[in-house]
Amino acid sequence: MQLTLSLTRAARLFPDHTATVFEDRTRNWREVEARVARLGAGLRELGVQTGDRVAVLAHSSDRFFEATFAILFAGGIFTPLSTRATPGEIGDLLEDCGARVIFVGKDFHGFLPEIEKHAPTVIALDEDAPDGLLQHEALIETHAPGIDAKRHGNDLAAIYYTGGTTGRAKGVMLSHDNLYANAMQSLSHFRYDERTVYLHSGPLYHLAAGSRLFTNTLLAATHVFIPRFSPEAVIEAIETHRITMTALVPTMMGMLVHHPDFEKRDLSTLDLITYGGSPIAEALLAELIEKLPHVRFGQAYGMTELSPACTYLEPRDHTLNPATRHRLRSAGRPAIGCDIRIVDAHDNDVPVGERGEIIVAGPVVMQGYWKRPEMTAEALRGGYMHTGDIGAYDADGFLYVLDRLKDMIVSGGENIYTLEIEDCLRKHPDVAFCAVIGVPHEKWGEAVHAVIQPRADAAPEAAALEAHCRAHLASFKVPRSFEFIDQMPLSAANKILKSELRKRHWAGHERMVG
Amino acid sequence: MQLTLSLTRAARLFPDHTATVFEDRTRNWREVEARVARLGAGLRELGVQTGDRVAVLAHSSDRFFEATFAILFAGGIFTPLSTRATPGEIGDLLEDCGARVIFVGKDFHGFLPEIEKHAPTVIALDEDAPDGLLQHEALIETHAPGIDAKRHGNDLAAIYYTGGTTGRAKGVMLSHDNLYANAMQSLSHFRYDERTVYLHSGPLYHLAAGSRLFTNTLLAATHVFIPRFSPEAVIEAIETHRITMTALVPTMMGMLVHHPDFEKRDLSTLDLITYGGSPIAEALLAELIEKLPHVRFGQAYGMTELSPACTYLEPRDHTLNPATRHRLRSAGRPAIGCDIRIVDAHDNDVPVGERGEIIVAGPVVMQGYWKRPEMTAEALRGGYMHTGDIGAYDADGFLYVLDRLKDMIVSGGENIYTLEIEDCLRKHPDVAFCAVIGVPHEKWGEAVHAVIQPRADAAPEAAALEAHCRAHLASFKVPRSFEFIDQMPLSAANKILKSELRKRHWAGHERMVG
Repeated sequence: MQLTLSLTRAARLFPDHTATVFEDRTRNWREVEARVARLGAGLRELGVQTGDRVAVLAHSSDRFFEATFAILFAGGIFTPLSTRATPGEIGDLLEDCGARVIFVGKDFHGFLPEIEKHAPTVIALDEDAPDGLLQHEALIETHAPGIDAKRHGNDLAAIYYTGGTTGRAKGVMLSHDNLYANAMQSLSHFRYDERTVYLHSGPLYHLAAGSRLFTNTLLAATHVFIPRFSPEAVIEAIETHRITMTALVPTMMGMLVHHPDFEKRDLSTLDLITYGGSPIAEALLAELIEKLPHVRFGQAYGMTELSPACTYLEPRDHTLNPATRHRLRSAGRPAIGCDIRIVDAHDNDVPVGERGEIIVAGPVVMQGYWKRPEMTAEALRGGYMHTGDIGAYDADGFLYVLDRLKDMIVSGGENIYTLEIEDCLRKHPDVAFCAVIGVPHEKWGEAVHAVIQPRADAAPEAAALEAHCRAHLASFKVPRSFEFIDQMPLSAANKILKSELRKRHWAGHERMVG
Repeated sequence: MQLTLSLTRAARLFPDHTATVFEDRTRNWREVEARVARLGAGLRELGVQTGDRVAVLAHSSDRFFEATFAILFAGGIFTPLSTRATPGEIGDLLEDCGARVIFVGKDFHGFLPEIEKHAPTVIALDEDAPDGLLQHEALIETHAPGIDAKRHGNDLAAIYYTGGTTGRAKGVMLSHDNLYANAMQSLSHFRYDERTVYLHSGPLYHLAAGSRLFTNTLLAATHVFIPRFSPEAVIEAIETHRITMTALVPTMMGMLVHHPDFEKRDLSTLDLITYGGSPIAEALLAELIEKLPHVRFGQAYGMTELSPACTYLEPRDHTLNPATRHRLRSAGRPAIGCDIRIVDAHDNDVPVGERGEIIVAGPVVMQGYWKRPEMTAEALRGGYMHTGDIGAYDADGFLYVLDRLKDMIVSGGENIYTLEIEDCLRKHPDVAFCAVIGVPHEKWGEAVHAVIQPRADAAPEAAALEAHCRAHLASFKVPRSFEFIDQMPLSAANKILKSELRKRHWAGHERMVG
């Protein structure tokens, strides 16, 4: 597949349909296709050649979308950078990918001194850019539509950086076919079409959110952008633009459903909410299903290295029916086209129901880590991507993700899966967010420790939470200590950063796991 | 994508679900996966190496399915041969593809003398084979499961022969990714899942029918086989096996709906009928929609070179609502991922609404014609498959297929599209089937000639049919001559063979078109 062909198709079939919406700008597919072809010609003239990495550092917008497709059109490799990174980290990423051309949004003009050390050609996405910078709009205005480089199939389309929070960031190389396969999986399992009006709620440099740039263009659906997530902005956009579909991570879902505007505003156009990126509390999901009875829900599980999804919990499985309700705790079943194994430390399959590492083969498996052949060979050994997640199948083929291999606590020789304990803690009415980590313990190696962010109006005590856990968990899983904080450290994808929480406890110690 | 991975996935997720049903044999996915791995090992031992063509000449059965996947498992290229071909034609096809190993069904034992001249290794699919032949079951019994060759992506998966009725047959080379893309398109547009119980009604060597071997295995749906199409066998199978889905060509649909058993038997399990392969009369489609109100209908248009589909008329567009009913005459919209252009003789796009050749780009476009590089370059010039069909878009992006380029009649300088005239004739109550062809004419070059197969109880006269046409068509389109026959010559895919009808009229003449 040639991803830019989806733009050609959209402009041919639906020239007057709305393609992109951002603030006061609305453009149809005819306009967007022409703008991409002009911007692509501009990139070529700036020296971008086939296979060159071109970076993007910006919050979400219609122009971010145009930059993405113009890079592909010019034959480049789209390389989005984290909007959560520091200038120094951005410098490291540019050094790693070797991009000489970068699109920069207005919120990152302060990074220019660091950026220009690596990427001499800076294109300002927004109007109020410092003098002397190239301008996105000017490139479009001053260039005639170019010729599509027609990269496709196994050709690299994108490099997404991942893992920066737990070590040096790695560039995940994804081909045109990887992103096409992910899109087709999503369409087959979630069932949506060109009538979709999609709200990009999450950060586009993160593939869980960014993959819909491709899926919805394949459909010729409408892209609506807000610069960044806030519950107010999402609720406002749904009502204003009559949004039919969006993707969220569980923390966003919690913020939405508990927002005072949630019940007041018109969310009736919503047809499908997809979610993933981190485990969801069954109670939160049940609450959403009850409060939004007209909405279909779909979960995907995976990682950037899987383009990014390898399992789907379909709308038909989002039911509170007691016979199948337990499936809400699963990540769904392996995607059509993907084989998923649960293996022991020697890559041997374990029996159904037993725990092991989740490893994945299929058309969404990455091409490798950029410039890291050994790390690639290790991750892809035996033709399966080793996720580093622990999971188990049930007898119906549903996959339960139990923990990150590196978050698992080994205490007194027992493997303890933190997600189970967190799920228990989240059911306590005073707990807003929680994270369970292993902390050093002289006798047991590690001890179970719980970090709690209480609800705004609550002040829970450790003894009460311990009693709550003791009522629901085996005693060796009950946290031995509790810690209360005002705000969880969150990753760019709004996942709780357990690595941050662990740091303080582990200074001077070395963990066995992860 | 590695097509055999779909079998691994099916066996892992749904080991006890029914995989294949044929006559008195029913097997689950665990059994089928093991049998394929054993048969694949047998093929390897027989000398099949990576990239070798392995032929199959047989009517539909569970063992046809096993042979298909065992060939892929062993690293071979699945090469099904037409069950309509003569022994001499089979010899030509074997010569062309160079297969040294062939699976042969019991109805083709008479072909063995010719077959063995080319393919010395013959595997009998059925029990009652002549002495000395290798046996499908024996190969499975005597081999342990082998190691999958894991061919994938652009690797060739299959060669399907096409065009034998209009010249020398050409082998269409399709990759694993071609067949994967076709499957994912079908799932996205028609929406079905692993609960599907699919009846293979058509001949599996023809990709319009055979492609579902791959799609339904990707889903882990149930395959039900009947050896060959008859309306009785299809109706019987639907009732007996509680079929939810099947694919038909329009002539089959007509035979079904007019069969005396159609209204008597229980067809209530049917959820989806897909059709294609030749134009359908709007009246027939409307009749089916009315008589099967619980069934969703889906049309696909394409050709073997497109794996085989490039447009889809979705179930939502199969409505008798007057505002959109005209869409029933279209082939639907371009598949997700496919760009379709309508071009003039110089490959320039024509405006929306105007007629031209249909050309197609996308992930389903074939790798080329086997050993025919010049024919390949010609067909794929500019990166688009040139279908040889004439079509036009409407303003909503629906594609209307007007004629085969080579069936179009050029009379007195006018281009006349035969499908329009046939559609008119089919509305006459005395007409069962019809075909309009061009016949030589001294003054106009060609004249419009209609071949009619009357309904069983009717004896229409030429004058009445002419008057019928004159009432609905411009005068230059009205057939100048009529011919009545008892049985239309049909291709293996149940398409009317216009080339056969033309032959008699064109002896000693040369046609300008096609």
